Amino acid sequence: MRGTFIVIEGIDGSGKTTLAKRLAGSRDVWLTAEPTKGRLGSMLRSGELGDIPPAAEALLFAADRSIHTAEIESELEKGRWVICDRYAGSTVAYQSASMGDSADWDWLNSMQAHSVIRPDAVILLDMDPEESMARVGSRGEELSRFEKLDFQRRVRTAYLRLAEQFGYIVIDASKGADEVFADAVNALKQRGIDASE
Amino acid sequence: MRGTFIVIEGIDGSGKTTLAKRLAGSRDVWLTAEPTKGRLGSMLRSGELGDIPPAAEALLFAADRSIHTAEIESELEKGRWVICDRYAGSTVAYQSASMGDSADWDWLNSMQAHSVIRPDAVILLDMDPEESMARVGSRGEELSRFEKLDFQRRVRTAYLRLAEQFGYIVIDASKGADEVFADAVNALKQRGIDASE
Repeated sequence: MRGTFIVIEGIDGSGKTTLAKRLAGSRDVWLTAEPTKGRLGSMLRSGELGDIPPAAEALLFAADRSIHTAEIESELEKGRWVICDRYAGSTVAYQSASMGDSADWDWLNSMQAHSVIRPDAVILLDMDPEESMARVGSRGEELSRFEKLDFQRRVRTAYLRLAEQFGYIVIDASKGADEVFADAVNALKQRGIDASE
Repeated sequence: MRGTFIVIEGIDGSGKTTLAKRLAGSRDVWLTAEPTKGRLGSMLRSGELGDIPPAAEALLFAADRSIHTAEIESELEKGRWVICDRYAGSTVAYQSASMGDSADWDWLNSMQAHSVIRPDAVILLDMDPEESMARVGSRGEELSRFEKLDFQRRVRTAYLRLAEQFGYIVIDASKGADEVFADAVNALKQRGIDASE
């Protein structure tokens, strides 16, 4: 039997990694994330390309995803679950926020056409960026608060638009981890996916 | 005054580099090529990523082009001519040939939407792959003749389709270098570009 492919999306500090681990539980799951740890993903993480055009960045994320998707597909074929922290939605949400007025929504989506497979479920951990930034701050990361808040708000708006367009499961991530997990399990159950512990 | 942007396309051995140098003549021209000598272009040339999905490769070429285009734009703004050996057409022609039946023509074209600027002219050096391969062979490159001929034929077909779709200048590249150059100068003149020596 083919495995189940679950994607978790959301702004930084929304609890994606915590939920991913919790959903994995004691299952034989491949917990993975984007950008990947492969050559392109590492390049994107490190910023070694310097200040490149946002279009180039979006295309690189999609290229990294295309390679990643081949690996995901092979795990699913073995019957393994795959839980992925960020996938196509991240490129669309973050790049459209970066590109601002010049963002081309349809282009950002259609670019991914041959880089993705359809997840069985995409969970969006939605929360007020002011709150998520407080959490991230408490993880000790460097923030220039006023610049970033506006950006994170645009990312959130884009995520909610994607959620509507592609039927994401939207969960209020301002709740505690236990409640978020319970909401996710319930929503997945309604889609025929048993993720209970 | 803004510079002039000329692109030369064609299969290997069709004489692109020779024509590019000849068109440049003694002008102050930036002679450039794709894939670029930048980080992504070098990665594509070296094959260091190994066997990646054709979609990933197409996206990487477009990302490399996006960075290159910013450089081209800056030269054009200085009033400099730019002659580029391969540009967007190469990605569409070669990747559609690689992808075969799974090739998505519109996707390969639309992916480039934010990675390119419109050249003032695109010259396609068209010739029978059997002939161009004989030329390349004489340059001492390694060829597995029977495998590659069929591929080059698909590339040529794709190039001719692009030429029709985007109004390329098509030149019979089986002629001698002097004649090819004269044909190019004439065709450019008709588009208001003076490339005479």
